[in-house]
This record gives sequence, structure tokens and C-alpha cells, in this order.
Amino acid sequence: MRLAVAALLATLGVGAGATSEPVLTARDWRETHERAILDEFVELLRIPNDGRDLVSMRRNAEAVARLLGRRGVQTKLLETSGAPPSVYGEFPVPGAKHTLVFYAHYDGYPVEQRHWYTGDPFRPVLMSGRVEEGGQPIPLPRPGWPSDPAWRLYARSAADNKAVIVAMATALEALRARKVPLQSNLKFFIEGENEAGSPHVAALLKAHRSTLRGDAWLLCDGRVHPSGQQQLIFGVRGFAGLELTVFGAPAELPEGRYGGWAPNPAQQLSRLLASIKDDSGRVLVEGFYDGVAPLSDSEKQAIAAIPDNDGALARQLGLRFTEGGKLRLPEIVTQPSLNILGVSAGAVGADAREVIPSSATASLIIRLAKGMDHRNTIDRIVEHIRKNGFFVTEEEPGDDVRAAHEKICRVVRQPGYNAMRTPLDLEISKRVIAAVEAARGPVIKIPSLGGSLPIAVLQDIVRSPAVIVPIANDDNNHRAANENIRLQNLWEGIETIAALMAMPASESGSD
Amino acid sequence: MRLAVAALLATLGVGAGATSEPVLTARDWRETHERAILDEFVELLRIPNDGRDLVSMRRNAEAVARLLGRRGVQTKLLETSGAPPSVYGEFPVPGAKHTLVFYAHYDGYPVEQRHWYTGDPFRPVLMSGRVEEGGQPIPLPRPGWPSDPAWRLYARSAADNKAVIVAMATALEALRARKVPLQSNLKFFIEGENEAGSPHVAALLKAHRSTLRGDAWLLCDGRVHPSGQQQLIFGVRGFAGLELTVFGAPAELPEGRYGGWAPNPAQQLSRLLASIKDDSGRVLVEGFYDGVAPLSDSEKQAIAAIPDNDGALARQLGLRFTEGGKLRLPEIVTQPSLNILGVSAGAVGADAREVIPSSATASLIIRLAKGMDHRNTIDRIVEHIRKNGFFVTEEEPGDDVRAAHEKICRVVRQPGYNAMRTPLDLEISKRVIAAVEAARGPVIKIPSLGGSLPIAVLQDIVRSPAVIVPIANDDNNHRAANENIRLQNLWEGIETIAALMAMPASESGSD
Repeated sequence: MRLAVAALLATLGVGAGATSEPVLTARDWRETHERAILDEFVELLRIPNDGRDLVSMRRNAEAVARLLGRRGVQTKLLETSGAPPSVYGEFPVPGAKHTLVFYAHYDGYPVEQRHWYTGDPFRPVLMSGRVEEGGQPIPLPRPGWPSDPAWRLYARSAADNKAVIVAMATALEALRARKVPLQSNLKFFIEGENEAGSPHVAALLKAHRSTLRGDAWLLCDGRVHPSGQQQLIFGVRGFAGLELTVFGAPAELPEGRYGGWAPNPAQQLSRLLASIKDDSGRVLVEGFYDGVAPLSDSEKQAIAAIPDNDGALARQLGLRFTEGGKLRLPEIVTQPSLNILGVSAGAVGADAREVIPSSATASLIIRLAKGMDHRNTIDRIVEHIRKNGFFVTEEEPGDDVRAAHEKICRVVRQPGYNAMRTPLDLEISKRVIAAVEAARGPVIKIPSLGGSLPIAVLQDIVRSPAVIVPIANDDNNHRAANENIRLQNLWEGIETIAALMAMPASESGSD
Repeated sequence: MRLAVAALLATLGVGAGATSEPVLTARDWRETHERAILDEFVELLRIPNDGRDLVSMRRNAEAVARLLGRRGVQTKLLETSGAPPSVYGEFPVPGAKHTLVFYAHYDGYPVEQRHWYTGDPFRPVLMSGRVEEGGQPIPLPRPGWPSDPAWRLYARSAADNKAVIVAMATALEALRARKVPLQSNLKFFIEGENEAGSPHVAALLKAHRSTLRGDAWLLCDGRVHPSGQQQLIFGVRGFAGLELTVFGAPAELPEGRYGGWAPNPAQQLSRLLASIKDDSGRVLVEGFYDGVAPLSDSEKQAIAAIPDNDGALARQLGLRFTEGGKLRLPEIVTQPSLNILGVSAGAVGADAREVIPSSATASLIIRLAKGMDHRNTIDRIVEHIRKNGFFVTEEEPGDDVRAAHEKICRVVRQPGYNAMRTPLDLEISKRVIAAVEAARGPVIKIPSLGGSLPIAVLQDIVRSPAVIVPIANDDNNHRAANENIRLQNLWEGIETIAALMAMPASESGSD
């Protein structure tokens, strides 16, 4: 088996040299320890991990710390008052000049139990395949017996993101047991607030800035390509959110009596929103696009190499036309966008009443491209609102403010953060790509996701480049009922992480 | 007392001739029958009249028919399947060449019992004054004993609109008992669906078109001026309503992943709404103002004579600026208006989620000026929507429609009707003004209210001019808890209606 894989790697043109050794080591270790790995995984999944339950969250953190501790990682809990602790771990390697920080999260998306085929999201069930395709519950394989790679383990956080924690521990255990030499110090940062938007992560990173520094952060979260091909993601867009409320009279007014006389805040808000973005999706706020970093040649090449799925995706989603001109989606999401998440004023449908609303509210979200600053961006939008004749306030306007200004808009800013886009041609990027390709063959390199990730603040605080290394199957139902991990993805994840842990100190070392 | 009033009328310059006789007759009758009038009123108010309770509604209709029948009116119930019956009554006057139709309604606005000081809205309570000013419950006056005009009867529909029914019956009874000659046939149309927007009134008017014809309809509803001065209202604005829904993808989309690529229906709707009306309140739909009837000289004079309360009203309502340029509110409401009653897309505030909404909806209301047609007006708005690039449909778009059109807007039309504005210089208008002024002194003449009244369809169907003759005190809490009628308003209402019932056949006859 081991020889066959080595031959396959050779066929794929992947060097079976230094970098493939950790992969093969991890595979061999896994093949002889599947039941033990699954037992440890199931035990971790049994601990409920809804982030609002701080008692359970601490049990999770302690379990994660024990799991890493058993592999020789020196762990401690980083505490934040009123929030789940983060697990920090160090595995120093004598003589290593480089440091890699592995990120994962142990919290899970809140569950809706009634939608789970398996009944209890915290009672993991091994299934012979996808439930939708006839998968049936099966017992865990007996120790020493092989599993079928198509089997799936169903449980909350099976994919997002406890599989990664188990993969990290197993990879390190295999490398240590087989004495594969490591060339980087390893650090671990495993948080418990990811699904809640990591509200304390910035404070925590600031408090432990030097501890958490590394040559690269490897964010082991997300999903591989739907085709099963490995992908590496080098960035996410930044985030800025704001809520606009335009105020009319202090109370709703009878529309018949005053229609044509009393101004309507829903109309004012509509005109304001219309002024912000044109029909093609272009944001009309002055200076909005200023400073957007152009794509590098290697980013352009990476985008060109991403399989073109736009047409099929648009049909699948039911989009009849798209914004962004002729750009393909992988490039569009390297650009900023602004969207209305919601608008609310008065009532519609059967609830509509013949009144002029007293206020109108819209929630806006901005995805920032690299080179934009989230605070400046909101400032520019506020300036745009002012140019449209509004007095801008951050508070509910009192009588004095109402008396002094004709058009009033309250702006409530959400905490934001900037985009993160690690250059593909950084030395560390190249090393990460080489290590992962040694494990998984050619990877899809994505300069940026469209979404945002609060952990992206680490670049500004810790000043470490970061790469997202997903291992979960694309159809894992993350954040939904019936979340599951395909065993093969877990097995491959162990190999990928082993390859990263053991990667050579410099790119030249891998040749 | 009778002579003193005649002297007062003379002082006010009101002719104490033919027209004052019915007023003085009604007053004298009322003064000697107050307890009997109140007993009959209380009995009518005791019958619950929430329009959704058809059993109670029929009891009301039958009580109203009996009340009129006792005064020699020939009554019958006009039935509509699934709706409360309307009470129709005729009091033919031999030799009369003219016919007056008195309108009222016996249904009441749905009650919220817990807000009533008196406990049960259908257990009328006489109070020594406004509850907010220290009014206390008092027993009904003993027969023959006078009441205090400041006393108020608290009950649902005490003001809106059962007081009018009692006033009509009492006025007719007084005129008949004292043998005051009538010069007009009298008809009565008392409906039970006013508070529900009179959904069947058009069908009923059509079915009984010739029966319900008259030289004038006198709509005895609404409130006198806050100063206590009598007002006559010659019109209401028409009504058109529509709901717009703009469609995006069939499902909500992850905003991060697709922001900048997937179009946002909330943005499209905002731009559409912005295109409909400018910042000054001017409607930008082509042809919207076409055909609006100019004010006549007598309407302009009437408006100029209305006390100017705009500044104080704007301050009271908390309006910081107003639409309509330099026009005063009584003139503004003779013009059309368009307002957003509500907008809804996605969610705002704590409920906001990072998704692109799949649709966005707005409810619009149009108040039509005289000369506009409600169907044409909606047609013009639909045309405007088309010009803005939307495919317009009346139904939820299916896959085929979605596939064929980029921008889709569903338009749902509500049943509408045109404005009603009876010219002030019609012969019948002058006669109504003269009769009411004989009872109440100089009246405020309002060419149009801002609101709409479904019964306004009568002008198109029955082709009778109409004038609104309110009797209730302005502070009657109509449509709210603690509705009440000030006894003096009831007493004056009896006199006003007596004056109208007995008004001369032509204006010259009153000199």
C-alpha cells in the first residue's frame, strides 16, 4: 500500500522526496490506528459546543488541551472574561528558525435538533454514506479493521471544525512516533468563538501578540473544492457594517391627512440607498475604491487557473444577470462590494397601515478589498450621507437635534476589519503550496474568498501572513443540520497537516 | 330659552326665518326628551358592533331599522352575502321634488377592552367630563331634568357613528311631532362595514343604484373643528394602493461569497422607489398629475378662509420641514400624493443576517385628486416601472418568467376609487351650507379632506353629489379606547340634521 501510493505520487509528478515522507508516515500511522483516532474524535464531538453555554465550552477547551497535551504540546487556556477560553499550545523544535501557527476552532454553530436525521447532534453516528444517498448507520470499525473512505461521521462540528483538531493531534503523534524530523516550531491557537464572529479575538491577539507570532498562520477551516481537489486560500475580504436609520416625525402620522405635506423617511432612505450604488453594482460613494490593491501577476495566474464555474453557478442559484462586468467571480471577490442586507419601514402586505412611518432603517454590509481601511470606508459613506443633505448622528436624535435639522440619519457602525490577502509569491506561501501539493497533488490557489473571517485581524495585530488550509468535504452541511465529515477527508487532512508540520525550513530545502 | 336662542341667532346674523324654525323645534323637543333620547342611545350602544361578528351586526342593523321605523321611515335591510346588512330607509314627502340621502354607519372600530377606563366599551357610561380632566361616572339625568352639555357618554361608537343615527331619528321625530313641513323626500343608508373599508359598498350601490339616488348625499360622519366650529367637507381624495415586490434569486444567497456578483433586489427596489418621487415630494411618474382639476374660485376662497394652523400643527407633529412648497395644508390635500407605507427586505438590527435577500417589497398608497382616475394612475406607475427596466407581472414569477427577464417586479393592485369633490357653488351645496349655518352659525368649508372614504364611490355609481356633515366633538377618541360623545355635540347634531331635513327646496326659498 505504501509503495503503491509512492508510485502514484511519482506518476502525478509530485516529488517523493523529503516532503512526501511525512505524508506517507501519517498515512501509515492512520491506517493502523483508525479506530483509536475515531474514538478520540467521537469523544470530542460528544461535548456540546454551542458557544452560548460557557460551561460546556470550557469542557471542550479542556478536552482540546488534553488532546494536544497527550502529543507533547505545552498548552494553556487564554482567558477572556465572559467568553469561552482559547486553547494555546506550543511544540518547540530545538534549532528551528521558523514557527508555524495552526488555527482551528472548537465551537459549533447552534443546532436545530429536530432537523437531524441522527436525532442528537452531539451523539456522533457513523454512516455508510450520505444520508440523502441512502447512507445507513453503521458501527465504528473494529480495531485493526479498515474503514471505507466513503463513510461519514455525522455530528455537530464533525467537519467545522473539530476534525481539524483531531487531524492536528494525529499528525503530530505520527510524526513524533516515527521520528520524522521537524524544522519549524509549532504553535496552536484553537478558539471557541468562531461561529459567534470571534468578538474577542482581536483583544486576545493584542494581549498575546508576541506569543502568537509566527512565520505563517495556517487557518485550518473551510472546505475543499466541490470536485474534491485541494484548495489553498490566501485571503478573505474585510468587513464593515453599518445601520442607517432615517427619521421622520416622532410618531407615525395618518397618511391620508398629511400625505403630500409630511415627509416620508422611507422615501428619503430609498433615495439615499439609490444614491449609494448604481444599477450595475458600482458603488457611487466618492473614494470608495481608492487604494484597492491591484492583483499581482501570480494572483492573476492563480485566478486564470481556477476552473470556470460561473455560468453553471449562476444557473444553479437562479441568477438572471450578474454584476461585476466581465470579471469572473474569483476576481470579483478580490474587489470590494456593498450590499443591503435588510430594509425595514412601516409594514407591507396584510400588515400595511395607512400611516407615514416615523423612521426607516437599512442594514448595509461592505466587503473590503485589500488596500482599503474599514474605518475610512465607513467615514466615506458617512460623508456621502452628509452630502445628500442629512445630519448624521450616532444616537437616537433628541428633540434638540430634531428641531435643528431637516433630514436626520443615524449611523450605527459595527466593528470591522480589513481584508487579508497573503501574496502568493511570498517565500512562505510558496513553501505552504509545495508542502500541500506534496500531500495532495496540484492545488487550486484562491487569492481571496468573497466572505470575511474575523481572525483576519491577526495580520494587523500579530503581523503574520496567513493561509487557509481546508480539509472538510464540500458537502459537509456546515452550520446546518446533519453536518458530517467524509472519512477520506479526515484521513487526507491528517496527511496535509503532517506535510505542513514537517515542511522544510526554506523552499530550496524541498528540492 | 327658546327666545334667547332666537335672539342669539339674530345677533350672529343668522336669519331666524324659515330655516331656524326646524332648529328651534328640534332644540325644544330635545330639551323635553333628553332622558328618552339617551335611553334609546344607550340601548343602541349596548349592542356590540365589531364588524367581524355578523350575528351582532345583524342585531345592530335590526335595531337601527326599528329606531327609524318608529319615526315612520319605511326600512329594509340590503343584504350582501357574508357581510353585515345595510339599513335602507325612505321617508317620502308628498309633493317634494328633491331627495336627500342621509348616510351613517352602525359598525364600530374593533375594541381593545383593557384600555377602557369604563371597563366594557359596550356598557355606556355617562361621565361628568373628559376622564383625562377629572370626569367621573354619573347616572343618567332623571326624566325632565336637564343635562349638562359638557357631560360625555363613553362607549364604542358613541361618536363614530351611532350618535348620528340617534340624532337622525330624534330630528325626524321632532319635526313630525311639531308638524314642521318638509320639502324633501328623505332616504337613509346606514352601513355596517365602514371601519372595514366598506368592501361591499360599491356592489351594493350598483345593485340599488336608482333607489339610492338623491339630490345630495349627506355623509354624517367625522368631527367638527377642534375649536368647536361646525365644518362642512365637500370632498375626499381618491385612493389607489399597490404593492411592489422585486425579485432576486429564488433563495437568499450568502452575501460574502456573492457580494459584487449577485444582484440585490433591495437595491433595485430602492432605486425604483427613488425614481418615483423627488426630495421635494414631487411624483416623477410621467403623467401622474395629468388631469388634476384646478380649484374653483369658491374653493380657493373657502381655503383662504380656513384658519391657518399649519405652523402650529407642524410643530405639534414634530415636522421639521414639509413638502408641498408654499401651499397650505388645506390646499395640499386637494392635490395628489404618493407615499411609501412600508418597505421590507431581509432583516435589520439584531436580526440582520449576512445574506442577499431574495425579494424586496414596498407598499405604496396614492391619494388621488379630483380629475384623476385610479386605474390610469396605477397604469402610469406600472409604465414607469417598465421604463426602469423591469418586467412587470401580477403573479409570483415562475421559473420561465425568471429565466426570461433580468429585473422582475410583481405589482399587486388594491381596489381603488376616485376622488370626490362636490363643487361649493352647486345649488345643492349652497342650500346645505345655508341650512347648516342657520343651525350652527358660520361654518368652515373644506373643499377636500386629505384622506379617502370608500363611500366616495357613490358619486361614480349613484351620481349624486355628497357633503360630509360631522357632528362629533374633535376629541372623541374615535377608533381608540375611551371613545365618547360630548352631549352638546349630540344636541347640536340633532339641530343640524333637523335643519337639513327641513331645508327649503331651493336656496331662494330660504330668504
